[in-house]
Amino acid sequence: MTKVTPRLLRGFKDYLPETMLSKQRMLDDIARVFESFGFGPLVTPAIEYADILMGKYGDEGDKLLYRFRDNGDRDVALRYDLTVPLSRVVAMNGQLLKPFKRYQIAPVWRAEKPGRGRFREFMQCDIDIVGAHDMMADAECLLVGARALQSIGVNDFVIRINNRKLLTALLKKYDISEGEPALGVLRTLDKLPKIGTQKTQALLSTENGLEEDAIEGIFAFLELEPSQLASFFSDDDIGQLGAQEIETVLSLAEDMGIAHLVEVDLSIARGLDYYTGTIYETFLTNVDNFGAIMSGGRYDELLDVYGKERVPSVGISLGIDRLFSALVESKQIELQASPTQVLVTVFNESLRSESYAIANTLREAGYATEIYPGIPRMKKQLQYANRKQVSYVIFIGTDEARDGIIKLKNMDTGEEHTVQKEELITRLTQL
Amino acid sequence: MTKVTPRLLRGFKDYLPETMLSKQRMLDDIARVFESFGFGPLVTPAIEYADILMGKYGDEGDKLLYRFRDNGDRDVALRYDLTVPLSRVVAMNGQLLKPFKRYQIAPVWRAEKPGRGRFREFMQCDIDIVGAHDMMADAECLLVGARALQSIGVNDFVIRINNRKLLTALLKKYDISEGEPALGVLRTLDKLPKIGTQKTQALLSTENGLEEDAIEGIFAFLELEPSQLASFFSDDDIGQLGAQEIETVLSLAEDMGIAHLVEVDLSIARGLDYYTGTIYETFLTNVDNFGAIMSGGRYDELLDVYGKERVPSVGISLGIDRLFSALVESKQIELQASPTQVLVTVFNESLRSESYAIANTLREAGYATEIYPGIPRMKKQLQYANRKQVSYVIFIGTDEARDGIIKLKNMDTGEEHTVQKEELITRLTQL
Repeated sequence: MTKVTPRLLRGFKDYLPETMLSKQRMLDDIARVFESFGFGPLVTPAIEYADILMGKYGDEGDKLLYRFRDNGDRDVALRYDLTVPLSRVVAMNGQLLKPFKRYQIAPVWRAEKPGRGRFREFMQCDIDIVGAHDMMADAECLLVGARALQSIGVNDFVIRINNRKLLTALLKKYDISEGEPALGVLRTLDKLPKIGTQKTQALLSTENGLEEDAIEGIFAFLELEPSQLASFFSDDDIGQLGAQEIETVLSLAEDMGIAHLVEVDLSIARGLDYYTGTIYETFLTNVDNFGAIMSGGRYDELLDVYGKERVPSVGISLGIDRLFSALVESKQIELQASPTQVLVTVFNESLRSESYAIANTLREAGYATEIYPGIPRMKKQLQYANRKQVSYVIFIGTDEARDGIIKLKNMDTGEEHTVQKEELITRLTQL
Repeated sequence: MTKVTPRLLRGFKDYLPETMLSKQRMLDDIARVFESFGFGPLVTPAIEYADILMGKYGDEGDKLLYRFRDNGDRDVALRYDLTVPLSRVVAMNGQLLKPFKRYQIAPVWRAEKPGRGRFREFMQCDIDIVGAHDMMADAECLLVGARALQSIGVNDFVIRINNRKLLTALLKKYDISEGEPALGVLRTLDKLPKIGTQKTQALLSTENGLEEDAIEGIFAFLELEPSQLASFFSDDDIGQLGAQEIETVLSLAEDMGIAHLVEVDLSIARGLDYYTGTIYETFLTNVDNFGAIMSGGRYDELLDVYGKERVPSVGISLGIDRLFSALVESKQIELQASPTQVLVTVFNESLRSESYAIANTLREAGYATEIYPGIPRMKKQLQYANRKQVSYVIFIGTDEARDGIIKLKNMDTGEEHTVQKEELITRLTQL
C-alpha cells in the first residue's frame, strides 16, 4: 500500500477515550434531561439534497456548507444544523403527532475559518417543539435548556432573550429591506458584545450602509427597558406583538421558577434567516468573553418552504464542544484514563480459564474488567493496570486456584486482601 | 424563501423517535458491554483526507467512497469504516498506551447500490485491540462480540471464523497474484453462501479468470476439516501458521466458555484488503439468508502505510441497522411511542405554576413528565396523552390545588386515584 502521512483536516478533532469518556457521560446526562421532558430522539442523515439546506442560513451560511456532487451527480451537502433537517422530516411525515417534541444530539459541519475552540465539525444538542404556537413552548425550551446545563454541572449562566419581531419592526422603521440587508444588520449587531459599541456602529455604517439616524435609533432601542417596548412601538403591530411575547415568556419563566436565569437583552440578534419570534442566547456568568453556549428561537415560517400549512415551532441548541473543553481546562471535569475498574492477571496458560471465569463474574456484577491480551510477566501486567488507573488488580496463581481463593490488590492504597472466590463480589462491594 | 420538495436521498433513512428510542437503548447496551471489557470510546471526524482512506478497501471500496473537494480544494472523503480512521489516530498519537482498546459507535458512508435493508449511511459498532499480537486478543473480540449480541437479546447466532493466512497460502498455490487479483477471488468467494457453489465456480472462471484446476483446488480446500489444515499446507509456512492460529483461537474460545458459539468456516473470505490473520463473520441461526451481522479480523499490517513500526491489531464490527430492523419486524423489540411516563394537565393560567411544580417533582423522582405546551380543553390534553401512550395523567384543578391533593389516572386500566400532594411519588412507586 502507498505510504501516507497520518494527518487530520484543519478544524477537525479526534476525541481520545480519556477525553471522550467524560464527554460521553455529559451527552448521556443531557439526553436523559431531554427525555425527562418527553422529547424523543430523532436521527437524520448527515447528507441532504443541497436545496433542502440552501437559503436557510443567509448568504454567509450558504457559503459555509460542505456542498458537493455525489457519485450519482446529485447536488448534496452535509447538514449545517439540526433544525432544517428536522423541518424536512416534519414536512415528509404528516402522520407525526403535534406538538412534536424531539431531541437530536449529532455533529454538524461548517466550513468556518478554524479558530481557538472553533471547529468545522461540532456536536449540537437540540430540542424542538414543532407545531406549537403557544408561548409555553418558548418557555419550555428555556426550562429544558437550563436543566440540561445544570445536569452537567454548569450553574453560572444566564439565558438572554429577545424577540425577532422587535428587530423586524425596528429595521422596518429605518427602511432596511427584509432578507439579506436586514440579516446583514443583525449579524453586525450579534458582534456587539465582542467588539463593543464604537466598532459596531462603524460597521453598521461601512458594511451595512446605514445612515446616522438609523444607527442612533438602533442604539436608542438597545437602551430600552422591557417595560418601555410597547410604547416605543406604539405605532407598529409587529413591534407591539414582540413586546407582548417577551412579557409572556418572562411571566412563564416566573411560573416555572427559572426567572432568575433569564434576562432580556435587546441586542441579541441571531444571524439565521429563519427566526420569527423569541430568540435565545446563553452565556456563562463566571467566564468572560466565552461566547454563547446555547442558542435558539422560534421559527414559525421555516416549514412554509414546503408549501404546506404553517407549522409554528421553537427550539434551542446546546453546543457542547467548547463548553466541554472549558470545563476540562478549569478542572470542573476530571478525565478518566479508561472505563476499567478491575484487571484480572493471568499467571500462565493453564490458569487462563480460571482468570476468564473470574473476569466474567466481575462483569456480571457490574465491574468493568480487563484481562491483558497475552501473558507477559506479572510486572508488565501491573504496569498496564497502573497506566489505565485501574482500582483493583486480582491475582490467581496455582496455589490460589487450588485453594479456591483470590488475591485482591487495591491500587490506590497498595493494600492486599485474600478472599474466598465466592466472596469476591461481596468483598469488592464493601471496599 | 424558494419552495422545495421535502425529500430524502435514496439509500438514506430518518429514524423517528418511536423507532430511535428502542434503537438508542440497544446502542447504549452495546456501549455498556464494550466498556465492561475496558474499551474506551473514541470519536473521529466524519471527513478525512482522501489518501488516508484510499487503497484500504480494494478497488471496489475506493469507488464507493463519498469523495469530494472541500471549500479549500482539498481532496477529502467521508469515512467508509471505523478501522482505517482508528489506524490514523494511532499513528498520530504515539503516546497511547498499548494494547490500545477502543470502541466507536458511529455512522459510515458507502455509495452502494441501495437495496432492501442496505443503506448508504449506516451505523457501525466497533471494538479494536491495537498493538496486541497475542491471539488472546483475537479471542477477546469473539467474546465481546458475543456478549454485545446477547445484551440486545440476540442469542441464536454463530461466529464463523477463518484465517486470511490460509487463503493467502491457497491463492499462492494457484499462482493468483496478491493485490487486486487475489482480492477479486476473495470477494467472489464471499458470495458463496448467497449464490451457491455452481454460480460461484462460474464467476471464478469468468470474472476472476481462474483455471479449472484452481477452482477445483479451492473447493477441495473448502471441504477440509480444521484438523486437516496443517497437513494440507504441509509445504507452506504461511498456511501452517494459519492452521495453528485457528487452532489457538478455538482453544481460547473453549477457555472463555464460548466454544459453542464459534465455528470454523473456510469459505469466509472478507473482501477488505487489510486483513492478515483471523477473520470473523457472524450469522443468525434462526433466520435464513440474513447475511453477516458482525464481522472483522486481524490486520497486522494496516499501520505499515504510515511508515512506523508494525502495530498488530484485531477488531470486530457489529452492524446494528439491519439487525435492528429485523428485531422490530419479528416483534422481538417493542417500539415505544415516546419516553413520557406522566402527563400533568393544566386547567388554566392561574393553576399553571402548580402544574409546573408537580411536573418538576416528578422529573426529580425520575419520571419522564410532560406538560402540554398550551392550555387547550382537557379532552385535547388527554388525547395527546393517549397518543403518546403515557402511563399516568395527573389533574390538578382549583379544588385540588386548594386542598393539597392530586388526581391520578392510570391510562392503561382507567383507574383514578386521589392522592395527597406530598404522597404522589410514594403512591406512583407503589403503582
